[in-house]
Amino acid sequence: MRIYDIIEKKRDGNKLSKEEISFFVNGFTRGEISKEQASALLMAVFIRGMDEEETVMLTESMARSGDLLDLSAFGNMTADKHSTGGVGDKTSLIVAPVCASLGIKMAKMSGRGLGHTGGTVDKLESIPGYRVDLTVSEFLKQVENIGIALIGQTGNLAPADKKIYALRDVTATVDNISLIASSIMSKKIAAGAKNIVLDVKCGSGAFMKTPEDAEKLARLMVKIGKSCGRSTAALITNMDIPLGSYIGNSLEIKEAVEILKNGGDKTLRTLCVELSAAIISLVFGKSHEEAVNDAEKALNTGIAFDKFKELVSAQGGDISVIDNPELLPVGQYQKDIFAKESGYIVSQDSRKIGEASVILGAGREKYGDPIDCSAGIMLLKKTGDRVSAGKKTATLYTSDKNRLEAAAEMFNEAFKISKTAPETKPLIFEKIV
Amino acid sequence: MRIYDIIEKKRDGNKLSKEEISFFVNGFTRGEISKEQASALLMAVFIRGMDEEETVMLTESMARSGDLLDLSAFGNMTADKHSTGGVGDKTSLIVAPVCASLGIKMAKMSGRGLGHTGGTVDKLESIPGYRVDLTVSEFLKQVENIGIALIGQTGNLAPADKKIYALRDVTATVDNISLIASSIMSKKIAAGAKNIVLDVKCGSGAFMKTPEDAEKLARLMVKIGKSCGRSTAALITNMDIPLGSYIGNSLEIKEAVEILKNGGDKTLRTLCVELSAAIISLVFGKSHEEAVNDAEKALNTGIAFDKFKELVSAQGGDISVIDNPELLPVGQYQKDIFAKESGYIVSQDSRKIGEASVILGAGREKYGDPIDCSAGIMLLKKTGDRVSAGKKTATLYTSDKNRLEAAAEMFNEAFKISKTAPETKPLIFEKIV
Repeated sequence: MRIYDIIEKKRDGNKLSKEEISFFVNGFTRGEISKEQASALLMAVFIRGMDEEETVMLTESMARSGDLLDLSAFGNMTADKHSTGGVGDKTSLIVAPVCASLGIKMAKMSGRGLGHTGGTVDKLESIPGYRVDLTVSEFLKQVENIGIALIGQTGNLAPADKKIYALRDVTATVDNISLIASSIMSKKIAAGAKNIVLDVKCGSGAFMKTPEDAEKLARLMVKIGKSCGRSTAALITNMDIPLGSYIGNSLEIKEAVEILKNGGDKTLRTLCVELSAAIISLVFGKSHEEAVNDAEKALNTGIAFDKFKELVSAQGGDISVIDNPELLPVGQYQKDIFAKESGYIVSQDSRKIGEASVILGAGREKYGDPIDCSAGIMLLKKTGDRVSAGKKTATLYTSDKNRLEAAAEMFNEAFKISKTAPETKPLIFEKIV
Repeated sequence: MRIYDIIEKKRDGNKLSKEEISFFVNGFTRGEISKEQASALLMAVFIRGMDEEETVMLTESMARSGDLLDLSAFGNMTADKHSTGGVGDKTSLIVAPVCASLGIKMAKMSGRGLGHTGGTVDKLESIPGYRVDLTVSEFLKQVENIGIALIGQTGNLAPADKKIYALRDVTATVDNISLIASSIMSKKIAAGAKNIVLDVKCGSGAFMKTPEDAEKLARLMVKIGKSCGRSTAALITNMDIPLGSYIGNSLEIKEAVEILKNGGDKTLRTLCVELSAAIISLVFGKSHEEAVNDAEKALNTGIAFDKFKELVSAQGGDISVIDNPELLPVGQYQKDIFAKESGYIVSQDSRKIGEASVILGAGREKYGDPIDCSAGIMLLKKTGDRVSAGKKTATLYTSDKNRLEAAAEMFNEAFKISKTAPETKPLIFEKIV
């Protein structure tokens, strides 16, 4: 088998076989296939596309390119949740303890933020002492002991995806549905959970701009998950506006705690309950209604909050900031934002708001940039709310006052106010099982 | 300007600007753009295509990426000839002295053979002492003195093409009309001649299999040449069967001398006269009939042969082998091929015959392989000829007797004999001016 012939085949729009896909993935991971040949193939895949079967084969090959986390000791009770990335998305911090408090084994690895989207690992690190870098055996032991662990990636999971992604990132081959789906799912498959729930975001702050594109991606990922022997479901959810009222690392821990304490933003709570219910349905085979009920109860009774504290404590985090979130670091420089006119907020572009939070220091432009966990944005008004000219609508926080003006400018660009109320969009467009 | 955006633009099927194409060509030549980004762009170009204007801009950028040979001292009298590559194609050895004997300045650089196709430089090197590696100043001086020089590439001409071609060669992006045309023409433009005649081969032994594809390539190259201020014409010629009766380096020098001595294979002579006439028409503005007449006369009167001897002598070659071609090295091991049945030869696949000659040692599989200049094939019968079972149709030559059997097997695969005579195809399908 020669990589040249594989490139040629895909270049001409033909379907690749399982052997050809494995040959590429393994050869490239081992460094036997050059970057230039890999990028020619990726561009051919980007333009010519892959069908579902090829995409499943690509995902499996990438998943098998490194370690496969063995969660078999936990039987069918393991679950994982993945979000395609958004602004203000702190759902993992809530969904994981809710599910764990009901007996589900949440062995979850998360990523860091990049560009306008945040990452769970960065948020957790704003809890003083919290260790995100457990070893594989520490990770498994903690899941066994308390049913939950939230960490960064451990072990050598799907190294092919890492290498291929780095190449896609510089060769304009990121935005292809098969490549996106296989990248996400290869890591989830390698991470070993039997049940997977996907939160596929759509809208201004998401990679998928329309519900139709998000649905295609969601269906493909559910198909891949099932083909790889995992119970898989997906929710397609709105990312036209940021999720919840707080954006930024400490601030999002604070908001997660509010929800876990049975308070907080209603929309955020609803999404967390729905995502938890999707997991509960997959694991226990319960109806949607029963599953929602269980999730609500976990929040109402405080067992989810207790589980979160158990998690933070187990991973070395300072539990006092969870009990007293006002102890979490908050940017010493603040700037209030006021409505320029009266009317309804008809749009809060979440991409721009995410970018404003990056300017404040809450996110990073590129891998490895440092993060200011005390930076962020508090939204006092959301899309659909009525505002009066001169009234406060948001506050920006940072520890570097030079960043405030540029962030405010970007933030203001995100806002549109109109005399008439906007049509309301659903929070959840569709559930795919 | 960012290469990422340029890749993305072509990936999505959009037209690139002159600035974008130059940015890529210059950046890649200087090593500022990575191979993986270049190969992603080349694959996008391969699949999405480039229009004529983009192809002209690409050619100009590549031509300007290194030295531009300055032939301005010779005014409009300079001419170059290029063949897209074939089997038994020794026309340059005849056309150049024919034209030079008529006062045209033939400053010609040629290539080496690769795969089943031969190269003029290898053929010239089978003349003992012949130097193909003149410096630029030696080259120009010789053109000034005797009106002709035939050498390998000198100077740093179109380095972008060399780098881009090396990448295309391993990423399955060779067979694209814009990339082929710009690669050929960038070198011709950099080589400086005012008049360019292209011999675009089509058929089994050529890169272009059909006259239609060859015509497209020819039209595009003529367009490029004219856009770059060169008088350009192209002939589309048959490469279903090898050109002439001899294949191999010494053997082809021998056959060229036969033609220059006013004898030899009629088809080969006709093609040489037509190619010479195309150049004569461009340079002197003569009609086709007058130009053919001039070329015929150059062969009839021996002035072309004299010019060839002057050339060989000027470049240090042993003139005695030109006067007595039987002195040229001929493989000491020979094998005669006999017809297996009686009938008409209906096909002589020139690709396979070319490959048989490579097996004998007359060509190379990859750049840098050594060549046995005494190896080759003499065809006694050509497509359309009647043969009787058991009669000799060809002789194979090599200096390594272990190669004879495999070569004979490959050679026999190329032959088809039938009871009915084949339709005859034209030698020249079309002339494009």
